[in-house]
Amino acid sequence: MLKIDLNCDMGESFGRYRIGMDDEVIKLITSANIACGYHAGDPGVMHHTVKIAIEHGVRIGAHPGFPDLLGFGRRKLYASPQEITEMIIYQIGALKAFAESEGVSLQHVKPHGALYNMAASDEKIAMAVAEGVFAVDKNLILFGLTGSQLIKAGEKMGLRVANEVFADRAVNDDGTLAARDLPGAVIKDAQQAADRVINMIINGYVKSIQGNRVEVKADTICVHGDSPRALEFVKLIRKRLVEEGIKLLPVDKFI
Amino acid sequence: MLKIDLNCDMGESFGRYRIGMDDEVIKLITSANIACGYHAGDPGVMHHTVKIAIEHGVRIGAHPGFPDLLGFGRRKLYASPQEITEMIIYQIGALKAFAESEGVSLQHVKPHGALYNMAASDEKIAMAVAEGVFAVDKNLILFGLTGSQLIKAGEKMGLRVANEVFADRAVNDDGTLAARDLPGAVIKDAQQAADRVINMIINGYVKSIQGNRVEVKADTICVHGDSPRALEFVKLIRKRLVEEGIKLLPVDKFI
Amino acid sequence: MLKIDLNCDMGESFGRYRIGMDDEVIKLITSANIACGYHAGDPGVMHHTVKIAIEHGVRIGAHPGFPDLLGFGRRKLYASPQEITEMIIYQIGALKAFAESEGVSLQHVKPHGALYNMAASDEKIAMAVAEGVFAVDKNLILFGLTGSQLIKAGEKMGLRVANEVFADRAVNDDGTLAARDLPGAVIKDAQQAADRVINMIINGYVKSIQGNRVEVKADTICVHGDSPRALEFVKLIRKRLVEEGIKLLPVDKFI
Amino acid sequence: MLKIDLNCDMGESFGRYRIGMDDEVIKLITSANIACGYHAGDPGVMHHTVKIAIEHGVRIGAHPGFPDLLGFGRRKLYASPQEITEMIIYQIGALKAFAESEGVSLQHVKPHGALYNMAASDEKIAMAVAEGVFAVDKNLILFGLTGSQLIKAGEKMGLRVANEVFADRAVNDDGTLAARDLPGAVIKDAQQAADRVINMIINGYVKSIQGNRVEVKADTICVHGDSPRALEFVKLIRKRLVEEGIKLLPVDKFI
Repeated sequence: MLKIDLNCDMGESFGRYRIGMDDEVIKLITSANIACGYHAGDPGVMHHTVKIAIEHGVRIGAHPGFPDLLGFGRRKLYASPQEITEMIIYQIGALKAFAESEGVSLQHVKPHGALYNMAASDEKIAMAVAEGVFAVDKNLILFGLTGSQLIKAGEKMGLRVANEVFADRAVNDDGTLAARDLPGAVIKDAQQAADRVINMIINGYVKSIQGNRVEVKADTICVHGDSPRALEFVKLIRKRLVEEGIKLLPVDKFI
Repeated sequence: MLKIDLNCDMGESFGRYRIGMDDEVIKLITSANIACGYHAGDPGVMHHTVKIAIEHGVRIGAHPGFPDLLGFGRRKLYASPQEITEMIIYQIGALKAFAESEGVSLQHVKPHGALYNMAASDEKIAMAVAEGVFAVDKNLILFGLTGSQLIKAGEKMGLRVANEVFADRAVNDDGTLAARDLPGAVIKDAQQAADRVINMIINGYVKSIQGNRVEVKADTICVHGDSPRALEFVKLIRKRLVEEGIKLLPVDKFI
Repeated sequence: MLKIDLNCDMGESFGRYRIGMDDEVIKLITSANIACGYHAGDPGVMHHTVKIAIEHGVRIGAHPGFPDLLGFGRRKLYASPQEITEMIIYQIGALKAFAESEGVSLQHVKPHGALYNMAASDEKIAMAVAEGVFAVDKNLILFGLTGSQLIKAGEKMGLRVANEVFADRAVNDDGTLAARDLPGAVIKDAQQAADRVINMIINGYVKSIQGNRVEVKADTICVHGDSPRALEFVKLIRKRLVEEGIKLLPVDKFI
Repeated sequence: MLKIDLNCDMGESFGRYRIGMDDEVIKLITSANIACGYHAGDPGVMHHTVKIAIEHGVRIGAHPGFPDLLGFGRRKLYASPQEITEMIIYQIGALKAFAESEGVSLQHVKPHGALYNMAASDEKIAMAVAEGVFAVDKNLILFGLTGSQLIKAGEKMGLRVANEVFADRAVNDDGTLAARDLPGAVIKDAQQAADRVINMIINGYVKSIQGNRVEVKADTICVHGDSPRALEFVKLIRKRLVEEGIKLLPVDKFI
């Protein structure tokens, strides 16, 4: 039986500032990537998000990013590999304490934003991330863009890895995500997005933005929970997965 | 045989900014309180400080403070008890990850600056700190001013506690530290400071700034390592401890 | 003819985080207090807010706060008077540059949150704020709680001051704002709030939460723009002001 | 008569952290680039640095950088041109307020670290910086690497510009600074550095690290004041300038 994990970035509120419909999306996913206070999130938000994840049986992962709250971790920052390893250790550690204080362990780590993208294509940054994850706990699963340098780095370190695909993002011929500002890069039709997801899981490929066949491995699907529309999107994908007999499970149950 | 622990605040550098002679003082102490990135310290500094502590057989503790790098954690910030518990969990977790990545566990937690002082006298803040420590790991030893609210809160939570005394700070009749700007509040003569320390350990009391006898329990002595003079101070205290037959040990060996 | 100013805190978004319905409330007020990047706001938000204020003929003021984005400037921070003067100069300067880059000058300064409250009751902090305002530009108008220490400090410095009253907040016998968590402290009925405002302007007093008559001077009314309901509130107050023949004007037109 | 300006980065301390021997180097230079609280500096440090500059007749400039205290503004951050323009306005404004509160105006703006380097070679970033400077005050002088994109952008905006050369840094054939880690990139011999400076001023060229002649225009020389050795360096350069009959003046006296 085919199996898939659904993950979502969460805990991105900060102080009085709110982002995301965490209390809703948590009911629809199997793995939560929780911001760790660098690009988003704060200790109170982390604590709350860990608690609602546990309440809904959702597995918890750290979602470390660059120390750039103003840019929401989406601006490239040229930190050194050592600095990256250390900021990864710091952030995972902070979240791990909240998880353990509630009696659960972390399942995974998924870097955020610019760090995710840089680690997808830059071998040194990918290794720096993987080393940070390994240093904290070698049983953590590393999430990375399917087939990316980050996945390779994780395997090289001896970590379990989860190949991630995006429901709503077109890819280039080389498997990288098409830049958001290209026409067609962001898939807005839920039906089309769901079809793509099903095809990636069952048939192992996707059509690139250039129109070519790109092989992909799909262990986990990234979805969003930042608007009522995004929630509808997730619900449709879940419905289609059920119809196709694909089992929804946290990734550490089948990797 | 009488036993005592010598602790020092460390890892207070930040980025290109240097504070403290950590590489020297680490050779002279038994417990290191390492800043966790809020009032001082950064991931690189934390990593380095953990490593030199291990190298010298010094036990590691978290030194969490207010999120106020500009004020070095010395300005009172009226955060809520819940916010304090959560900032404690966050910071301990971050340091714990560095310690565990190097194969050691944390020995203790000592709050920094204004948080230390507020927790010494305010019962609610003291409980908030103790709850944060307990949430992360109930085996952690909580350091607090001897006889203070923080010590009481730790005991109430069921934590092991270490009563701390200061080599170079005068106390009031109620055992609190005399305000730094009072004449005589900071003891500048090393010999006199060493005498006070020995007296507190052996006889269990100290003379207050008002001239009265104040009972104190001394499990650990706070020393400084921010100048060549401060290092001489520590060396003298160590010498006197040896002469008096008082054994220097990390606090978890005898509490 | 009676005259009054309507002011609102604005520009409190930060990076990807949104707070407030600035584009709506700007149409309803005469003076905008713009956050300066310490407790809220960022350079992009400041720039945008300055531009929409100019577009709608609204006068611009700096809204400096404590450097505590996480606590939204609402947590007391015990900075020294000198530190407060300097953080005031810094923040006013930053906003002034945006105003001047768009060809307008600043009208006023109103401290935010905990700094506003501390300056209302603590003479030293009040003077520290007034000195910062005076240092940047002695023509700036200082906004403070009616009759508070901040108003007195402004007058002592030789600044023009604007006595502020709150449409939706009950006051104590001594004129200070009743703590938010007291029953009746926050007035939720728009009609009642409007009545209070009209009475303060025309008759110069308000009934305290203890039921006594408190003299107040009302130069400017603080309103909110953070929800559709808050906007309705402001609209009702404006309507009542017109009905009563009270002229709505930026405060520097009549002080 | 040949004229030259000597500039130095200053005010880079932060809170309890000290960097630089500002009180010494201020006596040796004609223009001070003062950090504005983003990559270094804080309101108290800015205030103090402005005051000592005035005391010694040194002209004041803003030294804006990326919001990256941890990386001291030396890490590339891919902010958008608009974000860069706005962070420039913000930082200049903050410093301007301190200067004006002491009765002086700003002379110049020199971007710091990674922002300086990116603006030297990237036309869009150069224009973003120049626009920020122009927006605040079109009389400000823009400092940039001699012949760089930043100089061109300043001229295009109609700003006065100052071509900057470095006493202790080798250049490539295209005039860019040789990467610090290349052998010979940092000139450690004071005599040799002084010779280079004199040659650039009198003859208008320098030998590149590749051994070729590179034309340079030298309006201002960047020196350092972060160690006793750096101070000796500056003193030697000053001595040689006098011997060669080159007049030392703030740049706005001769541009």
